[in-house]
Amino acid sequence: MLPLHLQPESHVPLYVQLRDQLRALVHSGDLRPGDRIPASRELALMLGVHRTTVANAYAELESEGLIQGHVGRGTFISGNGNGLKLSPPPPPVLNGNGHGIRWELLFADERGEEILSRLTASAPADALSFVMARPAEEYFPVEELQLCVNAVLRREARDVLRLGCTDGYAPLREALLDLLRGEGFSVKDENLLITGGCQQSLDLISKAFVRPGDSLILENPTYPGSVAIFNGARARCLGVPVRNHPAPGASLGIDLEALETTLAANRVKLIVLTPDFQNPTGTSMPLASRRKVLDLASRYQVPVVEDHIYARLHTLEERIPSLKQLDRSNLVIHIDSFTKVAFPGLRVGWIVAHPAAIERLRLVKQTTDLHTDQLAQATLAEFLRRGMFSRHLAKMRKVYASRLQALEEALRRHMPEDTRWTHPDGGMCLWLELPPGFDANELLIHARERGVLFAPGRYFYVQSPLPNTLRLGFANLDEKQIARGVAMLADLLRIEMRKRQRGVRRAERSRVALV
Amino acid sequence: MLPLHLQPESHVPLYVQLRDQLRALVHSGDLRPGDRIPASRELALMLGVHRTTVANAYAELESEGLIQGHVGRGTFISGNGNGLKLSPPPPPVLNGNGHGIRWELLFADERGEEILSRLTASAPADALSFVMARPAEEYFPVEELQLCVNAVLRREARDVLRLGCTDGYAPLREALLDLLRGEGFSVKDENLLITGGCQQSLDLISKAFVRPGDSLILENPTYPGSVAIFNGARARCLGVPVRNHPAPGASLGIDLEALETTLAANRVKLIVLTPDFQNPTGTSMPLASRRKVLDLASRYQVPVVEDHIYARLHTLEERIPSLKQLDRSNLVIHIDSFTKVAFPGLRVGWIVAHPAAIERLRLVKQTTDLHTDQLAQATLAEFLRRGMFSRHLAKMRKVYASRLQALEEALRRHMPEDTRWTHPDGGMCLWLELPPGFDANELLIHARERGVLFAPGRYFYVQSPLPNTLRLGFANLDEKQIARGVAMLADLLRIEMRKRQRGVRRAERSRVALV
Repeated sequence: MLPLHLQPESHVPLYVQLRDQLRALVHSGDLRPGDRIPASRELALMLGVHRTTVANAYAELESEGLIQGHVGRGTFISGNGNGLKLSPPPPPVLNGNGHGIRWELLFADERGEEILSRLTASAPADALSFVMARPAEEYFPVEELQLCVNAVLRREARDVLRLGCTDGYAPLREALLDLLRGEGFSVKDENLLITGGCQQSLDLISKAFVRPGDSLILENPTYPGSVAIFNGARARCLGVPVRNHPAPGASLGIDLEALETTLAANRVKLIVLTPDFQNPTGTSMPLASRRKVLDLASRYQVPVVEDHIYARLHTLEERIPSLKQLDRSNLVIHIDSFTKVAFPGLRVGWIVAHPAAIERLRLVKQTTDLHTDQLAQATLAEFLRRGMFSRHLAKMRKVYASRLQALEEALRRHMPEDTRWTHPDGGMCLWLELPPGFDANELLIHARERGVLFAPGRYFYVQSPLPNTLRLGFANLDEKQIARGVAMLADLLRIEMRKRQRGVRRAERSRVALV
Repeated sequence: MLPLHLQPESHVPLYVQLRDQLRALVHSGDLRPGDRIPASRELALMLGVHRTTVANAYAELESEGLIQGHVGRGTFISGNGNGLKLSPPPPPVLNGNGHGIRWELLFADERGEEILSRLTASAPADALSFVMARPAEEYFPVEELQLCVNAVLRREARDVLRLGCTDGYAPLREALLDLLRGEGFSVKDENLLITGGCQQSLDLISKAFVRPGDSLILENPTYPGSVAIFNGARARCLGVPVRNHPAPGASLGIDLEALETTLAANRVKLIVLTPDFQNPTGTSMPLASRRKVLDLASRYQVPVVEDHIYARLHTLEERIPSLKQLDRSNLVIHIDSFTKVAFPGLRVGWIVAHPAAIERLRLVKQTTDLHTDQLAQATLAEFLRRGMFSRHLAKMRKVYASRLQALEEALRRHMPEDTRWTHPDGGMCLWLELPPGFDANELLIHARERGVLFAPGRYFYVQSPLPNTLRLGFANLDEKQIARGVAMLADLLRIEMRKRQRGVRRAERSRVALV
């Protein structure tokens, strides 16, 4: 039996109490690596708490590397949580005589980031989910796509079905070069590589340029998929803060002073940025900051990976030029994809960079998966050529602009004072800060019970997570759902604020008694 | 000017002379890393030799890591060729003040294996190419595919187009489980992961299980794409010989004695095998050897990766059970794909393994590319469900059996004595050994001029390449083309044999004179 004692009266959330007590048991040695701990359902029954309380505590301990779940076998203590993300895994057990391999001891690096998808998986089917930054499914241009597939298979089936070039399917390359040139990119054939989407592009970049121990600069907070890639490559991820609110003398986007300090103090191998509608904050870098970033990158001779995946989804007419468009020194590796505009299920993206970088990435791509699926490539080429992409993009920009407006309106109307949020000019997400001291994970426990979901901010941090932050993905909820969801969240937040004030008063009373 | 002196009279091939002299210049320090060497066309003119002679010398030096080509910039000395494949790359130049980044100094690992595709790229369009092991394009089931795509888009477009699960598209998972169970595999949902083909499966396995410095056992010779992956992960690749010809007391396939010795002498992390119609040799392991491999793997507790990609293309009725089917200790990670049976352009494969291994691979796959393209997955699911896959497979088995028969017949009829070859019972390639002392690269120079191509054996070796070996891929040439190609190769070989005999006689005469 585990010596766990939760205090429902405390103003410390139950899941935090449970998490801290379990962590203490590991640190004291009462629980050791390999020990099995009860399933969340089981422990919830034993402690008389809601199962989500245990699940939340476990999720946090798992993200700290303290425990690990194994399908069909249970949950086990896996480490002591001290800097585990960067430390090497336990030595593999080999040449032993045991029966059956202990697979988990053979794993080469830490587990990937799955918490976000688990949050959605465990929710009721009709939940209002602000969790994901995904396109609106009801607008998928299905008929257009069908036309394109059939045109392609009638005309060029054999080309599509045979083994292809690692560079990408030639008609798609041409159509993409047209698109990019039309948008003002100066790009030639040798600057382009087709990939299986931005996640794969990050993986290829990591394989091509990053070695164990290399230091990288990421925005903090940032897209967890990129942290997962670079942690997997055993790189040192240095998070530089993103400024989300205007302040005198500091522009929005990555903190330029901190960026310079970090570049000066470290041999940095790559800077990874999302200048437009950054995930998770929705913040964009103004033109002057972009120029400054390029200056710094050039001075320190560090390539910049520009994630351009949200940039076409701007609500304003005017677009700020991308880093790649401003790049005079061939410093920028620009990654982009079709997934946020049209079809997430078709895995096609691209990289624009200096020919030497592209050549290198092409060789890595060849080893990684030979080439990207050609039916998807050919279909998207046709979709571009027929002008369907531009028409669909124009339509979706209006849809998302209206949803974003609805979100901001609902936040203004319902959210308590001391809550603040970013004001994106596009993209798919907005970043909310709860009043100081509040914990978005705690709010999520209650919100999930009422059928509303969001992504707690801590999952996006490279370091120093702020527990009072959360991300609202607004693209796949309509205006009414958005208004309803926000009103519900605001209600819950007010309830929690009242509880907390009672807790504080109680704590003050006992402090007085002790004094 | 480079001090190069080629002797056209010598029996040493010109390209070998050139290669050895260039290598010597690097070792003596006359050529240093960063030095530019002439383009092959330029050097050929200067030396008065055929351009292919220079190209072949450069290709070999490049595969040794001595020189490297850079698009638009030329060819440069890149190392001293001493064990480069396993040595770390040069330290990155960072925080400098130069103009423009020297991308090639930022590359994290050695370049991928591209020589085979270059061989085809430089050939005339109407060449008879035995280079690749690829399906016959004239039999692509295009109409069936079109039916399947349309059925899928009519019925389930939204499911296909939305972001999917990393595990794979549910209908494809079901259809695959049905297929595998029908073939006698004992496989459950949690044993299966959908991937982007076998190359990606190897990449995922490498990421999940292999760390820098780990030792792996590969067959020697083997599929170069797998060597490229594991070299990229900085693993030690230990090649264990494949026996291609019956000998007393030794069965076909990986040398079991050498396998045991290698397991005993090294802490081996993985064994990678292709038991059926191995690439490049076409050799299959008999049942007893498979059991022995599993015994050894279990004794030393080393997982076995089984590449099953050619196994369905058997010419005999009877199939030898796969390692996975014989696997009692959950030791086998079984990889397979649709690409050799039907559509190489659709990148879909799968892995069957213990649930703990699958769970790990799934997390790695999530970080690598989120999931495999769903249009391809859904289309293949429909292709399986409608029985089209089995019908197409049955047809292709007959087509390839007839081509293989034509190949063996032509070899028996035309090839000079002292030439021997393997006798595959399926798959897509056959392994030819030229008389001892002959060099397949040299033969290829002449064959390419006559419009016949094959893959020299040395590109498949992990270590100790035998220059007199070559691979003949027979699947995408018809019976007549095969007969014509083999006759031409045999002609050329006879010419070379005569030249060589003259050279030997000349060398003998001068040796006599010297004595």
